Amino acid sequence: MLFHVEMTVNLPHGLPKAEADVLKATEKARAQELQASGKWRHLWRVAGQYANVSIFDVKDPGELHDILSTLPLFPFMQVEVRALCSHPSAIAEDGS
Amino acid sequence: MLFHVEMTVNLPHGLPKAEADVLKATEKARAQELQASGKWRHLWRVAGQYANVSIFDVKDPGELHDILSTLPLFPFMQVEVRALCSHPSAIAEDGS
Amino acid sequence: MLFHVEMTVNLPHGLPKAEADVLKATEKARAQELQASGKWRHLWRVAGQYANVSIFDVKDPGELHDILSTLPLFPFMQVEVRALCSHPSAIAEDGS
Amino acid sequence: MLFHVEMTVNLPHGLPKAEADVLKATEKARAQELQASGKWRHLWRVAGQYANVSIFDVKDPGELHDILSTLPLFPFMQVEVRALCSHPSAIAEDGS
Amino acid sequence: MLFHVEMTVNLPHGLPKAEADVLKATEKARAQELQASGKWRHLWRVAGQYANVSIFDVKDPGELHDILSTLPLFPFMQVEVRALCSHPSAIAEDGS
Amino acid sequence: MLFHVEMTVNLPHGLPKAEADVLKATEKARAQELQASGKWRHLWRVAGQYANVSIFDVKDPGELHDILSTLPLFPFMQVEVRALCSHPSAIAEDGS
Amino acid sequence: MLFHVEMTVNLPHGLPKAEADVLKATEKARAQELQASGKWRHLWRVAGQYANVSIFDVKDPGELHDILSTLPLFPFMQVEVRALCSHPSAIAEDGS
Amino acid sequence: MLFHVEMTVNLPHGLPKAEADVLKATEKARAQELQASGKWRHLWRVAGQYANVSIFDVKDPGELHDILSTLPLFPFMQVEVRALCSHPSAIAEDGS
Amino acid sequence: MLFHVEMTVNLPHGLPKAEADVLKATEKARAQELQASGKWRHLWRVAGQYANVSIFDVKDPGELHDILSTLPLFPFMQVEVRALCSHPSAIAEDGS
Amino acid sequence: MLFHVEMTVNLPHGLPKAEADVLKATEKARAQELQASGKWRHLWRVAGQYANVSIFDVKDPGELHDILSTLPLFPFMQVEVRALCSHPSAIAEDGS
Repeated sequence: MLFHVEMTVNLPHGLPKAEADVLKATEKARAQELQASGKWRHLWRVAGQYANVSIFDVKDPGELHDILSTLPLFPFMQVEVRALCSHPSAIAEDGS
Repeated sequence: MLFHVEMTVNLPHGLPKAEADVLKATEKARAQELQASGKWRHLWRVAGQYANVSIFDVKDPGELHDILSTLPLFPFMQVEVRALCSHPSAIAEDGS
Repeated sequence: MLFHVEMTVNLPHGLPKAEADVLKATEKARAQELQASGKWRHLWRVAGQYANVSIFDVKDPGELHDILSTLPLFPFMQVEVRALCSHPSAIAEDGS
Repeated sequence: MLFHVEMTVNLPHGLPKAEADVLKATEKARAQELQASGKWRHLWRVAGQYANVSIFDVKDPGELHDILSTLPLFPFMQVEVRALCSHPSAIAEDGS
Repeated sequence: MLFHVEMTVNLPHGLPKAEADVLKATEKARAQELQASGKWRHLWRVAGQYANVSIFDVKDPGELHDILSTLPLFPFMQVEVRALCSHPSAIAEDGS
Repeated sequence: MLFHVEMTVNLPHGLPKAEADVLKATEKARAQELQASGKWRHLWRVAGQYANVSIFDVKDPGELHDILSTLPLFPFMQVEVRALCSHPSAIAEDGS
Repeated sequence: MLFHVEMTVNLPHGLPKAEADVLKATEKARAQELQASGKWRHLWRVAGQYANVSIFDVKDPGELHDILSTLPLFPFMQVEVRALCSHPSAIAEDGS
Repeated sequence: MLFHVEMTVNLPHGLPKAEADVLKATEKARAQELQASGKWRHLWRVAGQYANVSIFDVKDPGELHDILSTLPLFPFMQVEVRALCSHPSAIAEDGS
Repeated sequence: MLFHVEMTVNLPHGLPKAEADVLKATEKARAQELQASGKWRHLWRVAGQYANVSIFDVKDPGELHDILSTLPLFPFMQVEVRALCSHPSAIAEDGS
Repeated sequence: MLFHVEMTVNLPHGLPKAEADVLKATEKARAQELQASGKWRHLWRVAGQYANVSIFDVKDPGELHDILSTLPLFPFMQVEVRALCSHPSAIAEDGS
């Protein structure tokens, strides 16, 4: 099932650059792994912000929470989740 | 280019049912035509709300505005638009 | 799976009392039917407000939307949905 | 009587991991003790957030405050409380 | 137990004056009856607003809801409730 | 004259416990002195929050400000003030 | 004593022009009478809005409420009140 | 021309007292100099808050910005500006 | 001097189409006249909304208010005004 | 195409002045370079705030994001972006 997730990242100003670089690299690797698996179906950057809008395809809210809460940048994120469903006017079965 | 659009519909309580039915039917037809053309790329219902989250693929903000402002239900919608761009961690070229 | 739903009702002041009474009676009957089926697991009144907090147990967001959007009072409700999952400190399997 | 409580946790980034681990472990033990006693009746995780939604069954607001304000993570929580009561459409006596 | 209640009244502009006068008179009578009974312990006007701040002393949230939801002006009120308890620095037993 | 005051306290996480204890003890002593004098007429804890709702009886806004701004915890408080006056439906002369 | 008052006017669209004209004329006469008396000390228009910012000099919040709540346009106003006092850096005794 | 300015000061908790005292003293001197010049026409304290409401009389927004942005406490202020103009019901030419 | 103005239009649903058409036509004519005069320097549509962002070049806030408050659609607008000034990094004298 | 961008800068209080000076100087140089190129078409200071309102003319949201996210002060900015398009009442082709 699909969830609409918005993630906004706020890295504290005192975070050492080396530590931030490692966090970003592991975040990127994990994000790509999840996209390849089909669970992180869409990932877009919001123009002008250190933020993304994403669509996840998971088996339930528990799986979604496990994925989000173990992202390397999760401790620095503000996250908003909305459950999606089929729109009666959509021509694709699940809007995608 | 891609835009993230959220539409929330508020039909006035006094709107005659027949008028509302016509509006919804023409809205649906127009939405499906735009999806078929590739301009309304994704369309999802937000669970529990008379609202949708959509992704549009248009040539510029002017085309987006022309599409949105001529939707039959536009006078009854609250609309929020955010410009999207490629995310450096995305494995698909435009996140889709 | 579980969803946390808050419903706030705003009946328009001009709604005829007879019509409101019918709406409330059919809403109550439908709410009790859904509770009996196990899908509307908890239903509480928020003190001082024409509002409730509810827990739904449904198979997916689509079923939740079908239930909520066909409630007789839905056109007069503001609805907020949050997806729930197991809490690692909960002693009951699904928090209930 | 029942209270609806939402707790959102914000651990400061500079908190040493060992200290955080002790806080979380004592929080979990205390939460389970309160659940076993029947005072913390429901505990759910909000998907995607370091937050929970809970239902407490206490004898009065003073007992609720004593419980919440002595939770090990209380200094790091944002807490919102709403008093609940029976809903006229509920089929269980206290909504649970 | 004590609850802090804020009521803001919005009478619709089209309400006939005679009807409004009856509502206000019955509201006043009911408010005074509840004050005399000790359940509506304090009642203050917020300067410059058609609003009040009140303290209720009731046996539980259910009684509070019954009182508030049957006030003649309730359909025209926005109501906010907060549960109160003893403050450790208060010299009166229940703050009053 | 009466003022409705809400105080929410946020102690910075790095504040040494000894310093915090002194602040709280002097705050409590000052609060009790002001209650005894009749100027701090009511003091309630908001359940679940490090916050209070208070009623002050002072000769003018200047005296209120002098009292509030010299509270030991004032630098750590968010404060909201509303001027109160007699409510036409109140049976006590000043709502108290 | 001084109060800072913001008034924003929203005349309902269906209000007959003749009725609105009478309201505005009586409002203006009353405002000028109160200014002449010294109670409505300052009155400024907020550029671009049907709103004003005002300073009232009254003997207590009750007098302020009596003045505001009997303004002809009061039923159509949103009003915000803040109590003022002397600023330690002000060179005029009451900031005026 | 007149501008309505609200300044709220938030001194960081770690600011050394000696440094804060110098900031406040230079702020006060500058504020009094500007009042004496006629540019800072009114200055009031908001009761209960480390905040003021002020009226500035300057030749244009640029002069206002130069004044505000060079105040010693400016780096610690949240500032809101509203342009004022004559109110048609005011009896003084510029509301003052 | 320059002001940044945002206008959002909400036409009531019951407004007759003929009346709305006249309002829009006179609004357009007035907007073009003001642009030609140089007072309404920039006018952009916000994509997806019945709203605009504008820059006005007027002699003072009073002139701005006279212009805005006499626009045919003003009674149906929400308007926000911010005073602008030269930016130290701008290469054009007044940012335009 | 045009985008309306609002940038609000919050430099952390502990940032060394030398570091801040370098950031501001490189920000200014970059801003002027982008203005000279035509991509940063307008740049205004919001009176009383460490903030600007800007109009960018870029080929797509991706270019806008690249420009904004590489500004030297970007890590210290809150940024809001709105897509603009031609207004039907504008006499200049793109509102500029």
